[in-house]
Amino acid sequence: MAYQLHYWPTIQGRGEFVRLALEAAGAEYVDVARGDEGVPAMQRFLADPSVARPPFACPFLVDGKRVIGQTAAILQYLGPRVGLVGRGEADQLWAHQIQLTTMDLVTEVHDLHHPIASALYYEDQKPEALRRSQDFRARRLPKFLAWFEAILQRNPRNTGREVPRLVGGSLSYVDLSLFQVVDGLQYALPKAMKKAMRKAPRVAALHAGVQRHRRLAAYLASERRIAFNQQGIFRAYPELDG
Amino acid sequence: MAYQLHYWPTIQGRGEFVRLALEAAGAEYVDVARGDEGVPAMQRFLADPSVARPPFACPFLVDGKRVIGQTAAILQYLGPRVGLVGRGEADQLWAHQIQLTTMDLVTEVHDLHHPIASALYYEDQKPEALRRSQDFRARRLPKFLAWFEAILQRNPRNTGREVPRLVGGSLSYVDLSLFQVVDGLQYALPKAMKKAMRKAPRVAALHAGVQRHRRLAAYLASERRIAFNQQGIFRAYPELDG
Repeated sequence: MAYQLHYWPTIQGRGEFVRLALEAAGAEYVDVARGDEGVPAMQRFLADPSVARPPFACPFLVDGKRVIGQTAAILQYLGPRVGLVGRGEADQLWAHQIQLTTMDLVTEVHDLHHPIASALYYEDQKPEALRRSQDFRARRLPKFLAWFEAILQRNPRNTGREVPRLVGGSLSYVDLSLFQVVDGLQYALPKAMKKAMRKAPRVAALHAGVQRHRRLAAYLASERRIAFNQQGIFRAYPELDG
Repeated sequence: MAYQLHYWPTIQGRGEFVRLALEAAGAEYVDVARGDEGVPAMQRFLADPSVARPPFACPFLVDGKRVIGQTAAILQYLGPRVGLVGRGEADQLWAHQIQLTTMDLVTEVHDLHHPIASALYYEDQKPEALRRSQDFRARRLPKFLAWFEAILQRNPRNTGREVPRLVGGSLSYVDLSLFQVVDGLQYALPKAMKKAMRKAPRVAALHAGVQRHRRLAAYLASERRIAFNQQGIFRAYPELDG
C-alpha cells in the first residue's frame, strides 16, 4: 500500500525532506493534501478527537494504521524500509543524529524571518529578523557547515570519492536532507552561502552529486517539485543576506 | 559498564531530560563533566578530529563505543534498555514523536530569553524577548499544553487512573520529560503557567504523580539535582511572565 504524506500543498517546507526520500527511493506514495479535499483530510488527523495519537503538526506520514509525525522520525521510519540507510543500528543512530541536527538548522533558518512569532507576518518582525540574520550569517551558518564538512571528511568511506556520503558508502536520507538545506540556503542567502561554502568543499560536492541522482533529477525537473517561494522556510529577502 | 553522560556541569539544560531517565530507572551512570577534568573530556568528543562521529553539541551519551548526541535520540536509545518505554515498535515510535515535540517546546522556551542569538546576553535582546514571550504566553504555551492534555485524555490506559501516562499504562521517559518542562515553566513563568494549567488538569496530575515516584523524589531532593538558575533554559525573568 502506498505511503500517504500529509503536508501543506503550496510550499516545500519540512514536507520536502520526506518527499525527497520517497522520490529518490522510487517509493509509491500519495501527496494527500495536493489532491482534491486533501487539506481537510490532513486537518482531520490533527483535530479529530477520535484520533488517539494525533501528530502535533504536519508533515506526517500514514502507513496503514501507523501515523507518524515529526520529520526526523518519519525519515528514521522510512529509511530502512525504502533502502535509504544502512541496516546496522550504529549507522541508523548516526543518521538519525545528523537528521535531528539538520532539523535544528532548519528551525534556525525559519526563525531568520520569524524570530518573534510564526503567527505574525515577516513585515511585522523585520528589525528583529535583521538582527537575527546577522548572527546566523556570522556564527550559526559557519558552525553548522563546519560540522557537516568535518563529518564528511572523517567518514572513511569517502576516501578517493568524488561525491561524498554522510553515513557509510551509500546514499542515505540524510544526504538528501543536506542537499535540500544547501539548496534552500543558496536560494535564501546567496551572498552569505557563496562565502560560507568556500570552506565546505565536501558539502558542495555532496550537493552537486545528489542533484545528479537519476530519480531525484527527474523529480526536481517535474511539476511535483514546488518552487521555492516566500511562504516556505527558505525565503529570499535580500536584506537578510547582508 | 556505566553510561557516561556528558553535559555542562552547572545547569539542568537539555542534559536534565537524560538525567531524569537514568535516575528514575536506577541506571548506573557517570555525570562526566561534573567530575574533575570532566569538561575537557566532553570537549574532546566535540572537537578532537580523531572522533569519527562527533556530536554537534552536548548532551551526549557514551555507551561503550557508542557516542549518541541529540536529547531525543539519547532517550530513544535508553528507553528500551532501562525499561522506560514499551517493547512494541508502535509505542516506541509514539514516545519518540512526543519527545521530539517536547524538545521543540524546549527550544521555544530557550528562545524566550534568546530570540536573537545564543551568543548574546539576555540583556542585549530584551525588547525582542518581551515581544516573543507575549506570543509564547498567548499562543504557543496554550497550544502545546492542549496537545499534551488531549493525548493524555485519549490514552485508553488512563481511564480511571489518578496519575495518567503519555504512552500505554506504564511510566515512560516522555512522562519524565513532560514533568521537567512543566516544572521548569512553573519556575520561569509562574503567572502564565497558573493560568494555562487550569485547562490542563491531566498534565498537572502527571506532573504531581511523577514527583512522587520513589527514585525520582530521592533524586530531586539530592545534591545531584542542580537548582533552576538564570543560566539554564528555564529562567525566571518576571518581565517575560506578563
